[in-house]
Amino acid sequence: MPKNNLNKTIKASLPRGQRDIFGTDIDLINEIIKKVTCVYKRYGFEELSTPAFEFSDVLGKFLPDDDRPNSGVFSFQDDDEKWLSLRYDLTSPLARFVAENYDIIAKPYKRYQVGNVWRNEKPGPGRYREFIQLDADIVGSDNYLVDAELIMLACDSLAAIGLSNENYNVRVSNRKLLDAILEIISEKDSIDNERKLIILRAIDKLDRVGLEGVEKLLADGRKDASGDFTKGAKLKSIGIKKIMDFISIEISNRNKFISDIKNLIGSNQSGESAINELIAINDLLDRMGYSSEVLFDSSVVRGLGYYTGTIFEANISIENSNDKDLPVIGSIGGGGRYDNLISRFKKDAVPASGFSMGISRLCTILQLTGYNILKPKYGPILILLMDKEYEYSYFQMAKELRAAGMNAEVYVGNSGMKAQMKYADRRNSPLVIIEGTDERAKGIVTIKNLVKGKEIASTIDNRDKWINNTSIQFEISREGLSQKIKDILGTD
Amino acid sequence: MPKNNLNKTIKASLPRGQRDIFGTDIDLINEIIKKVTCVYKRYGFEELSTPAFEFSDVLGKFLPDDDRPNSGVFSFQDDDEKWLSLRYDLTSPLARFVAENYDIIAKPYKRYQVGNVWRNEKPGPGRYREFIQLDADIVGSDNYLVDAELIMLACDSLAAIGLSNENYNVRVSNRKLLDAILEIISEKDSIDNERKLIILRAIDKLDRVGLEGVEKLLADGRKDASGDFTKGAKLKSIGIKKIMDFISIEISNRNKFISDIKNLIGSNQSGESAINELIAINDLLDRMGYSSEVLFDSSVVRGLGYYTGTIFEANISIENSNDKDLPVIGSIGGGGRYDNLISRFKKDAVPASGFSMGISRLCTILQLTGYNILKPKYGPILILLMDKEYEYSYFQMAKELRAAGMNAEVYVGNSGMKAQMKYADRRNSPLVIIEGTDERAKGIVTIKNLVKGKEIASTIDNRDKWINNTSIQFEISREGLSQKIKDILGTD
Repeated sequence: MPKNNLNKTIKASLPRGQRDIFGTDIDLINEIIKKVTCVYKRYGFEELSTPAFEFSDVLGKFLPDDDRPNSGVFSFQDDDEKWLSLRYDLTSPLARFVAENYDIIAKPYKRYQVGNVWRNEKPGPGRYREFIQLDADIVGSDNYLVDAELIMLACDSLAAIGLSNENYNVRVSNRKLLDAILEIISEKDSIDNERKLIILRAIDKLDRVGLEGVEKLLADGRKDASGDFTKGAKLKSIGIKKIMDFISIEISNRNKFISDIKNLIGSNQSGESAINELIAINDLLDRMGYSSEVLFDSSVVRGLGYYTGTIFEANISIENSNDKDLPVIGSIGGGGRYDNLISRFKKDAVPASGFSMGISRLCTILQLTGYNILKPKYGPILILLMDKEYEYSYFQMAKELRAAGMNAEVYVGNSGMKAQMKYADRRNSPLVIIEGTDERAKGIVTIKNLVKGKEIASTIDNRDKWINNTSIQFEISREGLSQKIKDILGTD
Repeated sequence: MPKNNLNKTIKASLPRGQRDIFGTDIDLINEIIKKVTCVYKRYGFEELSTPAFEFSDVLGKFLPDDDRPNSGVFSFQDDDEKWLSLRYDLTSPLARFVAENYDIIAKPYKRYQVGNVWRNEKPGPGRYREFIQLDADIVGSDNYLVDAELIMLACDSLAAIGLSNENYNVRVSNRKLLDAILEIISEKDSIDNERKLIILRAIDKLDRVGLEGVEKLLADGRKDASGDFTKGAKLKSIGIKKIMDFISIEISNRNKFISDIKNLIGSNQSGESAINELIAINDLLDRMGYSSEVLFDSSVVRGLGYYTGTIFEANISIENSNDKDLPVIGSIGGGGRYDNLISRFKKDAVPASGFSMGISRLCTILQLTGYNILKPKYGPILILLMDKEYEYSYFQMAKELRAAGMNAEVYVGNSGMKAQMKYADRRNSPLVIIEGTDERAKGIVTIKNLVKGKEIASTIDNRDKWINNTSIQFEISREGLSQKIKDILGTD
């Protein structure tokens, strides 16, 4: 590490891809976390917190986009030369925790975790290297009910933050359907592992490149807008057709999806197993009242990672306050079954399934759409700092207001009244309390109602009228201050 | 980074000094953060979140124990070779944030932040390399009211988590008192910077080595229990006496402290400035009703860091549930005025003062003492998974209970009734709901009240009595389930 040169002024700046969060941004994040974790607790999940960094080989590297050249983790060496990495998701630490504490946890183990994860990727607009995830996982049961519960949990979480079920959906598939399709194609065309990955990547790109693009990637390859060429899987046309049929299955109706997929997959064993799970999940969802917010969608791939069964993606689509014809659409999380991840640590397989929500991503989308789940929020009530010898009196008022459950502060700078009023304005204070010599003598305080002031300022053009408006500035008795302030804030 | 060998089983373990937090430990941390941040908001502080790592030279290295050989930060290089470090406190990021956003923030800027910090130190029992801090700072005012407010905030925060004012105190001093003493000694003995640091370190060690130990460290040096020798400041005896007098001032009464310190310091300019601040703070504290919970204590040094004026330390002392004669005592935070820290980034000085609370430390102490601020807390209500064709019926019950504000879950494993009851026990479920074929036919469910069961199990020795006890196991109608369960939990 380089030594600081303390005589030189240092530039105050953040590394690329890092950001500060404050104001209504942090309020929004806190509100979402509060609402979603409440749902998780209602479902019986308990919280776990794991450290920010762990042994690199323990975390492994199961990144969703591990085909992207710059993707990776932040790593450094400990004093004893061992490699440590910042966690890049919350699933790898969970796998380590379960393996380490297998005998002391009640199974099925239902845990949630909220925390930052770090990705050593190229940052871009809205793409940070540190972001918040909120995960719920169930470890130790291969029952389909686990997957069904996580899908319902995803729906209920999005509903809890106030989204209507027209604004979100959860798209469900099963990795065994993909296995089945690949097995069927392999009968006519030997598919090695490399080609398998090219095929999965191609399907995963449907959103970005469209059906035509996928078809090219399954055949010889595709040139993108920038002229870069991506090598294709070079499948035979019968194989391409099979996959195109598979990803083109209509997603409008779960029952129809099941019957279409049955026709396509026939008697393949992996396929049948997947279909039976989808049927059971569909039945429970129907009975529990989840309709069009849960769709079956064969194009869901969820990266190339560790999933082994049910997979799903949560998406939101909200009207854009800037351009009503262009809704803001995005995936804000997903998950599925990963029955082999913990076997890295243990000989016995430990089935598991989870749902991960990207809080930072969700907030960005809500803000882009102007979708507001926060109530109008004011800053603290400001008590002006007037007479030096009566400072205690201002602090006494603040104490009374705080005890009554209000946020309140005395101005603690050195500036005069004009600057203090400006401060109140910048802090978004709902009102200001003034106790000068006159007021003290009369046992009163003067209130300036800034909320009302702003309201009326936009309708009155005469300055005198505004100043003399008694709903903006008025006197109240000092006694019983906090109740009177509560009344003012309550009615205005 | 070394590549994983995926064929080998990896040992699931954490690096030294790292830990997982779960169960009542994480509940306690959340509860403390909730209560303390509520006080911060009441005082008008607003939240800021900064990233976990920043440029190393921006964070600097202002560690409280920077004389300890192993102390340090975790650092690594970015792709562009720039050095990055995990934050080791929340003050350095604040200084960077203020300098970077100076023109857009309302001043005085009152922010709080809660988050992990990381120290690359030798871990030990109760000493982790990742821990949570909760900081409140006020930037942009040199008014003594800022310092007074932070001292009151520290008291109110400890009171808010339920500590009585006999269980905590805040000890206040002023770095300018130390400056004054050093100036006075320098008149008779030239003190260079190295000897100054040795003196400050000696005073800072009072808690650990006692008055006698400090005296040795001010003279030739001191040999500790392990035989290690620490070089002393080699002060003349007149200087030693002055410092010993200084740190021996009684702390029982704030007014007496002020008069004693006046006598000792005389007309030294730094000293007078410090005394005037203490007088003003004392006056406000008196009027606001803070008495013995705030003490003036000249032995408070707060490390060798960046402090320039008022400094304070928050301590708690709680009866030990294991040994009543041995209370658990510890510092859980502190702070003070640091008027020069932001000048690393800006030409103009920006006065600032702050309070930092060590949440992890506080939790450890509360747990050691058996001091419990958590209400008795149960796990989720468990609905047993009985008949496969009625799974939806169990999920329907869970949905009703959740909608009524209770935590509830259906067992989603594959085991039988006995294992499910054991699971309920391990999850600390308050009660279990059973709907078998008989119950369904009659339109009822069977309730097993596990709380009552545990209560009565300790008083009844006859097994039949226990099984037939109708307050432990009984039937209720399926209709109106959630209200009935609420009644049971409310009255039991």
